[in-house]
Amino acid sequence: MRCDVVAIGTELLLGQIVDTNSSWLGEQLSAAGIDSCLQVKVGDNLNRMVKAIRQTLEDADAVIICGGLGPTHDDITREAIAEIMGVELEFNDEVGMVISEMFASRNRRMPEINMRQAMVPKGANIIEQRRGTAPGLICPVGDKVIYAVPGVPYELYEMFERAILPDLLVRSGSVSVISSRVLRTWGETESGLNERLFGVIEELESVGNPTLAFLASGWEGIKVRLTAKAATRPEVVSILDEWEQKVRAAIGDIVFGIDDDTMESVVLQMLRDRGLTLALAESVTGGLVSGRLTNIAGASDVLRGAVVSYASEVKFEVLGVTKGPVVSPEAAVEMAIGAQRVLGAVVGLSLTGVAGPAEQEGQRAGTLCIGVALPNGVTASSVVQLPGARDQMRQLSVISALDFLRRQLRES
Amino acid sequence: MRCDVVAIGTELLLGQIVDTNSSWLGEQLSAAGIDSCLQVKVGDNLNRMVKAIRQTLEDADAVIICGGLGPTHDDITREAIAEIMGVELEFNDEVGMVISEMFASRNRRMPEINMRQAMVPKGANIIEQRRGTAPGLICPVGDKVIYAVPGVPYELYEMFERAILPDLLVRSGSVSVISSRVLRTWGETESGLNERLFGVIEELESVGNPTLAFLASGWEGIKVRLTAKAATRPEVVSILDEWEQKVRAAIGDIVFGIDDDTMESVVLQMLRDRGLTLALAESVTGGLVSGRLTNIAGASDVLRGAVVSYASEVKFEVLGVTKGPVVSPEAAVEMAIGAQRVLGAVVGLSLTGVAGPAEQEGQRAGTLCIGVALPNGVTASSVVQLPGARDQMRQLSVISALDFLRRQLRES
Repeated sequence: MRCDVVAIGTELLLGQIVDTNSSWLGEQLSAAGIDSCLQVKVGDNLNRMVKAIRQTLEDADAVIICGGLGPTHDDITREAIAEIMGVELEFNDEVGMVISEMFASRNRRMPEINMRQAMVPKGANIIEQRRGTAPGLICPVGDKVIYAVPGVPYELYEMFERAILPDLLVRSGSVSVISSRVLRTWGETESGLNERLFGVIEELESVGNPTLAFLASGWEGIKVRLTAKAATRPEVVSILDEWEQKVRAAIGDIVFGIDDDTMESVVLQMLRDRGLTLALAESVTGGLVSGRLTNIAGASDVLRGAVVSYASEVKFEVLGVTKGPVVSPEAAVEMAIGAQRVLGAVVGLSLTGVAGPAEQEGQRAGTLCIGVALPNGVTASSVVQLPGARDQMRQLSVISALDFLRRQLRES
Repeated sequence: MRCDVVAIGTELLLGQIVDTNSSWLGEQLSAAGIDSCLQVKVGDNLNRMVKAIRQTLEDADAVIICGGLGPTHDDITREAIAEIMGVELEFNDEVGMVISEMFASRNRRMPEINMRQAMVPKGANIIEQRRGTAPGLICPVGDKVIYAVPGVPYELYEMFERAILPDLLVRSGSVSVISSRVLRTWGETESGLNERLFGVIEELESVGNPTLAFLASGWEGIKVRLTAKAATRPEVVSILDEWEQKVRAAIGDIVFGIDDDTMESVVLQMLRDRGLTLALAESVTGGLVSGRLTNIAGASDVLRGAVVSYASEVKFEVLGVTKGPVVSPEAAVEMAIGAQRVLGAVVGLSLTGVAGPAEQEGQRAGTLCIGVALPNGVTASSVVQLPGARDQMRQLSVISALDFLRRQLRES
């Protein structure tokens, strides 16, 4: 089964918006065992759209068209599909009614032009609109199919999962349920993971289900994705449970979370579960750790605040660090204790280092010292050498420090 | 002149990497007056690559291929182009020598496989490699042309500007120099800008040179881009200077910088020029302002540090805010004064507000209070209502607060 993607919009070609929809679709399709071999961006021009869709449909079994379903006159995906199907557009009463009701419920006058969104190629099925005003379309073309979805990401995601993926799976003759589980890891390279999972991967290759893939996620570590197929959802879940345990047995504590977990959500939850509050002292990261933790609603349960001690005097005078070198594990521990005290928290976490480009105190760019202060005067520190230019080094510092705190909390 | 783009790489189709190269190229081409009507992603598969490139070349005058020039066996852009040109690949001594020298100068052993990067389709011209090991290619196909560049963004950008754009301009019969200038704005909508620039836009339409475009940049405001053509660089610069003045006269102080300026680089530079140091007190943004300022190398000249006072008690006890409501202009001013005092800086900037989803102290999500403390007890504050969900509200808060400080500094 091959499903290609055509993203519509002159703004994509002009570089005003980056097309992330087709990347997202590619990831979802691949997880479901469906190939996506060609992904095309084309502007709001009827002839070019029709040509691009026709060419794509030559080789693929299905094509997903993203965008061009809006109400204005440059939204012409409906017209392009009708031309390819060789049919007329007709007004769909039900869709029209849903659109009118959406405007009425928001007490807004509906511009007449919105009724364009109720025009549907004859013979197409509707994917009911739940988040926006435009419905999606399922359009048979011989034994192939064209899907059309709005370009607004959250509308697209919902329609893909609810209607398109199930339809694709039926068409591919698969009667199975497909589901993935992602294990989030930090602290090991892809080749290192590969080595440690060698036995599991060999066993998986002989079994064939689930499949395992590594997804590099830049500053966020490497995801290990298990994708299982079975006749029913409980069976899929039980396969995923079984193999999650095997993967965890092989790579252990470098797994920090699953699926939508992030390092910051995991650390916040660990602190919350233990009834602990947190204070930060940041130097090299200049507030990035605090900025990430506070992006999670409810962080205020746990996080008291942070002292960004960018100038050395702030380390000495506000945090009470001993005068002397400030990029050292000793200084990091003193910063963590200072944050604990000044901000009135149970746990303190600190980061001091050299972001570069220049070295500092004879330490080269990339040096990071992490300090943790726990209750009862227990402290810990770590020194890491991180790669990359300024921005990368700082981002890696954030996740390295949160992971260090995670490990200390688990052991304490 | 039409130049389409083919991005190569199975990882792009799998969604492991988002293709930002073709968006960047689209933006550059459009600024140079060259159309880009179709942009395609295709995997590392010879037949599909050849077909996609051929189809693209049918309608376009030129095609830029990004990626697939690496040394390994799945890097087959060279082979695909040779097939389309109907020629053999041949070893290019000069390219081979440059690659060997690159490895030698880094004291690294060169894997034999790297010599694949010296294979060149017969009849192609080389774009000398300056940043990586792979050269770019300029490959005539009849009266059309295929360009190939590495997928690594900074290698691609450099080769595009140095070799591809000039070649495209010559082919398009243009003997002119083209250059753009971007005015960064904050605080006005696109339609508002359009209204204020109505006279300038009308005049520009009758003159035809330079052109003016609005580029929405999300949280970073709206860019106004002027693109001028002339026979020589000094003439282009003089046209851009003249029209920059006209645009500035029409929209005034909402222009905060030009070209590569960012709000944070501009504010840091204003403080540095005036010999002032800065301290921050952040609540709703939780360290994001500090995180952005410290991402600029040399921020330590100016920024003393920040107190992230996420818990109200930190506002009262550390910053000395009067006990009571903490989302108010009065509290914001007290926070700014507290940061000034605690961190020993000349200027204090503070942010307190409601990121949501829930309201706080009867204030709805989106409320932002900004406080500024200047020397000699001068203070200022502002209350803004920002749109969007948690993340968007926080990002808009960052730039709103920095812009407020910018305006205060300019007036003081």
